[in-house]
Amino acid sequence: MIIRTDAAYADELDARDPLAPFRARFQIDDPDLIYLDGNSLGRLPLATAMLAEQLVREQWGGRLIRGWNESWFTAPERVGAKIARLIGAQPDEVIVADSTSVNLFKLAVAALRARPGRSQILSDDLNFPSDLYILQGAIDLLGHQRQLEIIPSADGIHGPTAPLAARLGEQTALVTLSHTVFKSGYVYDMAALTAAAHDAGALVLWDLSHSIGSVPVDLNGADADLAIGCCYKYLNGGPGAPAFLYIRRDLQEQLHNPLSGWMGQKNLFQFNLEYQPAPGLRRFLTGTPPVLSLALVEPGVDLLLEAGIEALRAKSLQQTEYLVALWEVLLKPLGFALNSPRDPAQRGSHISLGHAEGLRIDLVLINDLNVLPDFRAPDNIRLGIAPLYSSYRDIHTAVTRMQRIVAERLYEKYANDAPVVT
Amino acid sequence: MIIRTDAAYADELDARDPLAPFRARFQIDDPDLIYLDGNSLGRLPLATAMLAEQLVREQWGGRLIRGWNESWFTAPERVGAKIARLIGAQPDEVIVADSTSVNLFKLAVAALRARPGRSQILSDDLNFPSDLYILQGAIDLLGHQRQLEIIPSADGIHGPTAPLAARLGEQTALVTLSHTVFKSGYVYDMAALTAAAHDAGALVLWDLSHSIGSVPVDLNGADADLAIGCCYKYLNGGPGAPAFLYIRRDLQEQLHNPLSGWMGQKNLFQFNLEYQPAPGLRRFLTGTPPVLSLALVEPGVDLLLEAGIEALRAKSLQQTEYLVALWEVLLKPLGFALNSPRDPAQRGSHISLGHAEGLRIDLVLINDLNVLPDFRAPDNIRLGIAPLYSSYRDIHTAVTRMQRIVAERLYEKYANDAPVVT
Repeated sequence: MIIRTDAAYADELDARDPLAPFRARFQIDDPDLIYLDGNSLGRLPLATAMLAEQLVREQWGGRLIRGWNESWFTAPERVGAKIARLIGAQPDEVIVADSTSVNLFKLAVAALRARPGRSQILSDDLNFPSDLYILQGAIDLLGHQRQLEIIPSADGIHGPTAPLAARLGEQTALVTLSHTVFKSGYVYDMAALTAAAHDAGALVLWDLSHSIGSVPVDLNGADADLAIGCCYKYLNGGPGAPAFLYIRRDLQEQLHNPLSGWMGQKNLFQFNLEYQPAPGLRRFLTGTPPVLSLALVEPGVDLLLEAGIEALRAKSLQQTEYLVALWEVLLKPLGFALNSPRDPAQRGSHISLGHAEGLRIDLVLINDLNVLPDFRAPDNIRLGIAPLYSSYRDIHTAVTRMQRIVAERLYEKYANDAPVVT
Repeated sequence: MIIRTDAAYADELDARDPLAPFRARFQIDDPDLIYLDGNSLGRLPLATAMLAEQLVREQWGGRLIRGWNESWFTAPERVGAKIARLIGAQPDEVIVADSTSVNLFKLAVAALRARPGRSQILSDDLNFPSDLYILQGAIDLLGHQRQLEIIPSADGIHGPTAPLAARLGEQTALVTLSHTVFKSGYVYDMAALTAAAHDAGALVLWDLSHSIGSVPVDLNGADADLAIGCCYKYLNGGPGAPAFLYIRRDLQEQLHNPLSGWMGQKNLFQFNLEYQPAPGLRRFLTGTPPVLSLALVEPGVDLLLEAGIEALRAKSLQQTEYLVALWEVLLKPLGFALNSPRDPAQRGSHISLGHAEGLRIDLVLINDLNVLPDFRAPDNIRLGIAPLYSSYRDIHTAVTRMQRIVAERLYEKYANDAPVVT
């Protein structure tokens, strides 16, 4: 990629960007703020703010209990069916419920019980720690010598695909990985790993939290078994929005939800004392969903569908390539390391830049220079690009502010042990 | 209770009601609507509507990821500490998370694992079916011949206290009951049953969903072990608002959360691969909470604290007594049966009236006469009184409309197999 490093060039790229008009569909209070944390918490769509008011004042305040029949009961499936279109699934293969962690527990336990003779769960050390914690709890509960085997990445950047494939065997019950890994942005080859796991008789569960909305996913094309993901990153669903889960259609009635709750019961209002699972995916619901947080996921999904996942990916690739090119010229000489794959085909929509002073640089960005990236230990400054609203000028400004922090040693005003949470 | 059955008397009672001014703190669009379903979904507090706008536009839209440090991370404990004051618990004994069902799973599994040599869970057939479904899933998962024993109520109204106590023994791991039962409104003697269970070496888990906000609860006074409850009934927290859980302080670090998630990890941002539980109750958090739905619980709790639980109980008792008195004169002669305890000390804040035409009467109330009660199979019309906003005139109007439906046989316009969901 041939680039120029001046701001005018960033503006030229923005002027040529066919998705640029989507930025105006989001609330942007402070035009000087460079927000590169859409992969932790997406921005607020204007349509969502309007829906929030309608949900609270008209649906809850005005319709009261009638809201359940009028739109709330079906929200898990209605929003799920839209999310399905972003990840290559059928409308009845995705449902919105609970948190990513709770959904992982439900699906992982169901998968382990569906492979009772097998003791091994395979994952890697690039997976979300949150996912590994849930898996530890699940195998501790299920017992029978089940083991979670965490395959290390050689460089902390690329997924250990070959070592994972080599460990697959007749003991493998489940392989579970983050499709796009949260630190480096590495993207697994879903189809190849799923096929290898299937050859060994194992099930595969993909965490799509860092993929959905920016990286094309084709669950059906990969013959994927199970998937989960959160709705508050590139989906722009709001802080802690409920998560989604996917189960391939032919598996849905073979698997048992360990959190067998009322919302997954066959006849909710018969009040039978005995649990009978609902047909299809609804059986993987548990309790009453947090309606406001759930319903507010929908407008963000609509925006992504309107833009189209291929167009989003094209812009994301161009933007991450632009950022890598700027890094090479402006930041690499100042000690910044590229902690993301160099190959764009192996990369999601964020770029991690390491620096010996990473934590203190991050503090200057946040507190003094109005840039919000996020930070992942030990030294990664993670620059998340949300192609719906991130501009080329945002990227350029972030890079020049980082350049200035190191060139002028602005980070020295902070102690090296300051806590940071982003 | 000596009453008059005229509407003017209801107005006199309202005029003398010290809590009457709280009605104006709620959004009431349609003054003619008689809303007696606050025990399914509480009304919208005006302060909540204002907070919703601030949460969405200022906190999410404006502060973006910074909202986590500014108020979201601590919301589970902050709101939990306020709820604790309504149920006789210490501030660090209550936390808000997930749904009631998910919390029940966490606590029931933790309790069963804390009593490994004991196989029996005791409950009754007046418990929420949703709770029984979760318990069935939990014992199915844990195995080892554990059994859920459901003690029947003799009359479907009163809790089977003596038969429950008689079944307690050295096999009993856990007793779990709904403190106020959802159909009849019967209230268990928490202290007595807890003491009996403790004598047998069992743990007790109370579902407070139909108590909190209307019936005084003294968890510490009863030496209760565990409790759960939802926030969308008398707490007015909004549709599907996250639930709360209580663990007595000395048990918190003895129990293990089977849904061991990131929010319950000791050091969230160290991203260790191994789960280490946080100190205290935070270990019973799992995934990222639905912030909007969670934070909106707080203003409703504040209103209850401002009114005072003793004043709320006093009004609730007077209102249910008034309703029972009206029933006796106006409805009993028309075939309505009182399906709630006659003794106010054994009763929560709703009254169930059975009628052979209950379902069709309910349909007329909802569709034609602007009354929203709820219906519980087979024939219960459940009239929920929320002392923060229900008026005596509401109760009088509901009774006279029910009287008219039967006297004029208005229910005959509906088929007897029409579905109803409330």
